Amino acid sequence: MNDATGKLIQLALEEDLGSAGDITTNATIPPDAAGRAGFLAKEDIVAAGLEVASRVFREVDERCELHFSVSEGECVRKGQVFGEVTGPYRALLTGERTALNFMQRLSGIATSARQAADMLRGTGCTILDTRKTTPGWRALEKAAVRIGGARNHRFGLFDGILIKDNHIEAVGSIGEAVRRAREATHHLIRVEIEVETLEQVDEALAAGADVLMLDNMTDEMMANAVRRIGGRALTEASGGVRLERLRSIAATGVNFVSMGAITHSARAMDISLNIERD
Amino acid sequence: MNDATGKLIQLALEEDLGSAGDITTNATIPPDAAGRAGFLAKEDIVAAGLEVASRVFREVDERCELHFSVSEGECVRKGQVFGEVTGPYRALLTGERTALNFMQRLSGIATSARQAADMLRGTGCTILDTRKTTPGWRALEKAAVRIGGARNHRFGLFDGILIKDNHIEAVGSIGEAVRRAREATHHLIRVEIEVETLEQVDEALAAGADVLMLDNMTDEMMANAVRRIGGRALTEASGGVRLERLRSIAATGVNFVSMGAITHSARAMDISLNIERD
Amino acid sequence: MNDATGKLIQLALEEDLGSAGDITTNATIPPDAAGRAGFLAKEDIVAAGLEVASRVFREVDERCELHFSVSEGECVRKGQVFGEVTGPYRALLTGERTALNFMQRLSGIATSARQAADMLRGTGCTILDTRKTTPGWRALEKAAVRIGGARNHRFGLFDGILIKDNHIEAVGSIGEAVRRAREATHHLIRVEIEVETLEQVDEALAAGADVLMLDNMTDEMMANAVRRIGGRALTEASGGVRLERLRSIAATGVNFVSMGAITHSARAMDISLNIERD
Amino acid sequence: MNDATGKLIQLALEEDLGSAGDITTNATIPPDAAGRAGFLAKEDIVAAGLEVASRVFREVDERCELHFSVSEGECVRKGQVFGEVTGPYRALLTGERTALNFMQRLSGIATSARQAADMLRGTGCTILDTRKTTPGWRALEKAAVRIGGARNHRFGLFDGILIKDNHIEAVGSIGEAVRRAREATHHLIRVEIEVETLEQVDEALAAGADVLMLDNMTDEMMANAVRRIGGRALTEASGGVRLERLRSIAATGVNFVSMGAITHSARAMDISLNIERD
Amino acid sequence: MNDATGKLIQLALEEDLGSAGDITTNATIPPDAAGRAGFLAKEDIVAAGLEVASRVFREVDERCELHFSVSEGECVRKGQVFGEVTGPYRALLTGERTALNFMQRLSGIATSARQAADMLRGTGCTILDTRKTTPGWRALEKAAVRIGGARNHRFGLFDGILIKDNHIEAVGSIGEAVRRAREATHHLIRVEIEVETLEQVDEALAAGADVLMLDNMTDEMMANAVRRIGGRALTEASGGVRLERLRSIAATGVNFVSMGAITHSARAMDISLNIERD
Amino acid sequence: MNDATGKLIQLALEEDLGSAGDITTNATIPPDAAGRAGFLAKEDIVAAGLEVASRVFREVDERCELHFSVSEGECVRKGQVFGEVTGPYRALLTGERTALNFMQRLSGIATSARQAADMLRGTGCTILDTRKTTPGWRALEKAAVRIGGARNHRFGLFDGILIKDNHIEAVGSIGEAVRRAREATHHLIRVEIEVETLEQVDEALAAGADVLMLDNMTDEMMANAVRRIGGRALTEASGGVRLERLRSIAATGVNFVSMGAITHSARAMDISLNIERD
Repeated sequence: MNDATGKLIQLALEEDLGSAGDITTNATIPPDAAGRAGFLAKEDIVAAGLEVASRVFREVDERCELHFSVSEGECVRKGQVFGEVTGPYRALLTGERTALNFMQRLSGIATSARQAADMLRGTGCTILDTRKTTPGWRALEKAAVRIGGARNHRFGLFDGILIKDNHIEAVGSIGEAVRRAREATHHLIRVEIEVETLEQVDEALAAGADVLMLDNMTDEMMANAVRRIGGRALTEASGGVRLERLRSIAATGVNFVSMGAITHSARAMDISLNIERD
Repeated sequence: MNDATGKLIQLALEEDLGSAGDITTNATIPPDAAGRAGFLAKEDIVAAGLEVASRVFREVDERCELHFSVSEGECVRKGQVFGEVTGPYRALLTGERTALNFMQRLSGIATSARQAADMLRGTGCTILDTRKTTPGWRALEKAAVRIGGARNHRFGLFDGILIKDNHIEAVGSIGEAVRRAREATHHLIRVEIEVETLEQVDEALAAGADVLMLDNMTDEMMANAVRRIGGRALTEASGGVRLERLRSIAATGVNFVSMGAITHSARAMDISLNIERD
Repeated sequence: MNDATGKLIQLALEEDLGSAGDITTNATIPPDAAGRAGFLAKEDIVAAGLEVASRVFREVDERCELHFSVSEGECVRKGQVFGEVTGPYRALLTGERTALNFMQRLSGIATSARQAADMLRGTGCTILDTRKTTPGWRALEKAAVRIGGARNHRFGLFDGILIKDNHIEAVGSIGEAVRRAREATHHLIRVEIEVETLEQVDEALAAGADVLMLDNMTDEMMANAVRRIGGRALTEASGGVRLERLRSIAATGVNFVSMGAITHSARAMDISLNIERD
Repeated sequence: MNDATGKLIQLALEEDLGSAGDITTNATIPPDAAGRAGFLAKEDIVAAGLEVASRVFREVDERCELHFSVSEGECVRKGQVFGEVTGPYRALLTGERTALNFMQRLSGIATSARQAADMLRGTGCTILDTRKTTPGWRALEKAAVRIGGARNHRFGLFDGILIKDNHIEAVGSIGEAVRRAREATHHLIRVEIEVETLEQVDEALAAGADVLMLDNMTDEMMANAVRRIGGRALTEASGGVRLERLRSIAATGVNFVSMGAITHSARAMDISLNIERD
Repeated sequence: MNDATGKLIQLALEEDLGSAGDITTNATIPPDAAGRAGFLAKEDIVAAGLEVASRVFREVDERCELHFSVSEGECVRKGQVFGEVTGPYRALLTGERTALNFMQRLSGIATSARQAADMLRGTGCTILDTRKTTPGWRALEKAAVRIGGARNHRFGLFDGILIKDNHIEAVGSIGEAVRRAREATHHLIRVEIEVETLEQVDEALAAGADVLMLDNMTDEMMANAVRRIGGRALTEASGGVRLERLRSIAATGVNFVSMGAITHSARAMDISLNIERD
Repeated sequence: MNDATGKLIQLALEEDLGSAGDITTNATIPPDAAGRAGFLAKEDIVAAGLEVASRVFREVDERCELHFSVSEGECVRKGQVFGEVTGPYRALLTGERTALNFMQRLSGIATSARQAADMLRGTGCTILDTRKTTPGWRALEKAAVRIGGARNHRFGLFDGILIKDNHIEAVGSIGEAVRRAREATHHLIRVEIEVETLEQVDEALAAGADVLMLDNMTDEMMANAVRRIGGRALTEASGGVRLERLRSIAATGVNFVSMGAITHSARAMDISLNIERD
């Protein structure tokens, strides 16, 4: 199906192949040669992007077949060969870089999500991603976050209400903003609102908000807010969240903590492909 | 024009807006309200992605106008407001995240390219990027590299010959690989070949290769190779290149050094948008 | 922007114009002739589709301009001219049928939604649409429903959880189904579940479902269910809902009632366009 | 092939699935579960849309297979199971609504066309559809009309000349309009012209029109016109045609009668899908 | 509008510009430089392709403006400057080759059509094109034929019936083929049939065919056939038609003669563009 | 893969099939009939377009299979059947014209390229094509040139630098133009420059240009230029090159000669398809 990821893969192959294709490979490799290649982890990683790598190679040549000895989300140790692609030798050489470019970034995000999720293990607080993803990659990166063990915030602007200060100012009050948002969407969408002070917490609760985003608060202030809310709404910590602060945030009792760095600052993992002719 | 970047911007807005759009903003902001917003650097950056940010906002609403007080490639200091977007208030809120997601990553690459280029200033050696770019972003990231002051390697697989060991094996010898590659493309494309030993250097020279990629060599070995080549071909250092090694590589006399980390390991810069209603 | 409605308009014009275009009009009308045309209601209608009619004419020729004397959602009486399009005479003749085909169907839906909403006025129960819309027209028909004064259920399969009997069977119990659904989506999405008996009502409440769809229940059974739920979840009546039953359903105390007939059985309204040359 | 119906199916699935897909089904149904489902007529119908339903399910998952025990155009009785789809259980649940939305509307049109065609059986007069079809659905609805037993008028503005009063006014006379239209298209296209009076009938015949559309005439006037024409041109009755008037129109001797209500006022038939796991 | 010609122009620019664009022009011409260029005929031509050349330049840069001192279809003498394009200097250099490639071929077809039409002047016989056009260029080449003064045959397989020997064999007889074809399409489409003998002529007339294509007949045989038909059907000469035979074909009395060479063997006219900076 | 040729094939089939398809064939040929057809050369040709003809038939119906008894580039004698397509009888009739339209033009180009290449055999000078190709067909025609035995110049504006007089004027000197062009592209792209006088030859050599295009020079002047260059750059003859002048050009010692007529003036070869039912 012609989905968003399919379109991104096409963009990626078009930008690399242009109209003339892989001129080096086509000049030197016979069209009927077959080959195989192993995916090698050159550092410890949480594997992700396996499915998209398969789609890349099959888009280059539908005769490619990929088999992985791990599932998405499993840990792979440095030095481990965790999968194999077989197919036309030309396709292996032509698709290599694009497939790795996808897999390295997505494994980086899964690894970074795993690290954050591990920090919160046993705390009752859940780590969430944000909309700070690579444009064009939303579905892939959100999936990598889940693969890593963290959870997703809303997918986009369309499947969740999140009222910020600009929205509140425009309608005059938190109460009015919540009312309008509720009316504008359907009954399966919850309304979340960003609050920065305890006064705003009270207003948001009075307005019947379903979720309160506690924005840029100190741990102490957050703990106060959570006590005041007393379970009448879900709570999310947000703003300048770093890995080392995760456990003290969890100790405030918030339900969720969202962290843009899981996606926007994930490092590409070092993975290579050892290709050889059959 | 319906170019690759235009398609990526569309993918990015579609994934964020879905079919229902920015339901929070549409519920709370009147359609005729106007606003303005300033781009604020929250750390020192080399500005890039200004043009793509403009395209994002104009794609959201063609009435948006953007003006920047710096050009792409100029340094912006932490705390400096370096541009402004005016337009429908709804469009500013709806386009904010996507525009920033583009700009933060591209400024990160420009900043990282600047750093590498600065290391080589005065050496006669030129820093190049690689094909290790974010799939779908090739044109944008290659431009950010130039904006930062580094230079591009080939754009893709179609506009340069780069013969690697798999290609050589398949045809039997360096000489044959160069001959076939030369024959398969036109006379405005140079032929580059990856070499790992001094024997291969000799073979490549004998085959008439235009450029030799000295792959994974120590500085000493590279210096030997450069001397042996004696200007009969251009030379490029490649493989595991880190920032701190750049100057010693340059001292070997190679013409170019290529470095994947400029793109694949660039960090997203911290930039925010302060939006207010007119 | 290249949105879903824009793509549908293109499909509609392509199917009507083919490669050769409006051969009758092009043969007889000079390219520089201008004209004007009035939209005439030939029966009482709730006006909808005004915006899409504008887009159709502007897609045929961007010089077309449309002005309506009513807003979407206002009532128009039989015999009233409620809008005008001016532009190239050719474009008026070429775009007429497609624009009317859109407007007649959407006004039909708005009129049908108004009728249903009026039946529930003052009851505290809200009328909702369903996913029984014309394929390709979801966004347009959902908007016509709102224009008519009814409210939308979820937009599609992606922005709301609605657990049906097939889902429950597959995982073994209502509790497990709710748990898995909750885990699979983000915290701004509510979980609705279809129940057919009071036992299922109890199970669903125990599982913490946010919304209960009371499916194919008699009014009496529904009233029992609503009492049992006692505000611990939202409630929606569904299944075989006809206009004449709406008030007795509302009397059961359910929060929402959804009705496919608003969209799938709406009749095209009779609207014509009187075109004349300037 | 990437035809118009294929694009409509894609639009339909995109609007229902968004970027996140069927989140309820994906959360609860194992990816490897298989199922089967029967198409059940809940009232008497003329079956249509079988092929498009097949394409919908195969677009959701290419492993789906559909078999129908009736052909398009056959009558199905209330209570009869007339077809089956087997495939991944997820795909059955995800594609159900879209497939039914197509089939219900198209069976409605086939049923409505059958009713009109039956009225004219034995009269020598042929029932035609019009361009009053659902935008985006032209090919599907025209096919459903044929399936029902009625015939099509021209497909669009490009494959037939139909001169109306606006066209005549613009060139000054019926004679000139026919001449220009004839000249503008090729010799395999006939020229039809709308006439409202007997004077216009004479002018149209003198101009050599191939077909006369007798627009909004009483039966008596139409009979007069048909006599006057005396076989020198084909004749079509048009304008405000209702089912109950069909036989008296046929009695006037016209060759064709066209009726927008076949398509624009067809009611969605009640069809359901009973899905169960294998 | 996103029509077939628009898509062809996009393909043409994409294949010439790739992802990197006109690297020579971008490297040497300042972005703000303006220029002008004159279209120069280097031999006598019938001008065509003016509109598509305008679209090419405006697609490269929407600020380009084109003015022609002749209309499509007028003769231009060798040495005459017949039009001018002004706009960004870069766009003029970048669009030049693509615009000329279109215009040279289309003017070639118009010139070739003019030559054939002139041969038949005063004979009462009309020259037609065929479907032997450049794939992707149907609409453009058909228009160039009209511009040159010849007329079009059917646009494609969809807007005219043309029964050939394979079709007749499949159904068993000419009579049956005509009957089925008539039934399968609407009443504004005429039925043409290919005949090779006088027996077939009789059968075709008996079957009520509207047009007879006299295929590969000698002039004498064609004259016989025309006499036999006696105005009961239109007639078209086809098969191996060369320019020098046109007048003797016309003398047989056929209504039309179709000639593939008008399009498939037209020579590109010599036209150049003299570009200079403002 | 959705490549440029695939898009062109789609455009070609869409323009021929419209929304209604091959109405003659669908009316007369049963859907389950199978057939076969032989490709017949009606004059001596160099075969090309075999692959694209296969793609056309498979796009019409994926069950079509094509087998050729010659490879692309082999000579086929007049009267020889050189390939066969089998598949659904409908698909053979529907795809025939489009497949032949492609193959006839591409074989024409291969034949024309072969003729030119043969003229230069043994001279050490290589024949090149130009960018004077049919818009939309670049990749196909460049391939046909290679198939014929000639070689390609750059593919488009993006994969080679070619500095012309307009570029030189804009920057002031040949030296500056070469410098800027070199800087703007990567090190695997050579810089070619157009020169018209011996002074320009000297300047271009001094600027370090890699290739000199000797534009519109007499043979004598060209010979002088080649001597002066003395191997310090590659040389290309260009401008008004006709077949009969090729050998005298080669005698001047230039490395390459480019000739637009290979593509823009190639004649469509006469090839037909004899279709019969199984």
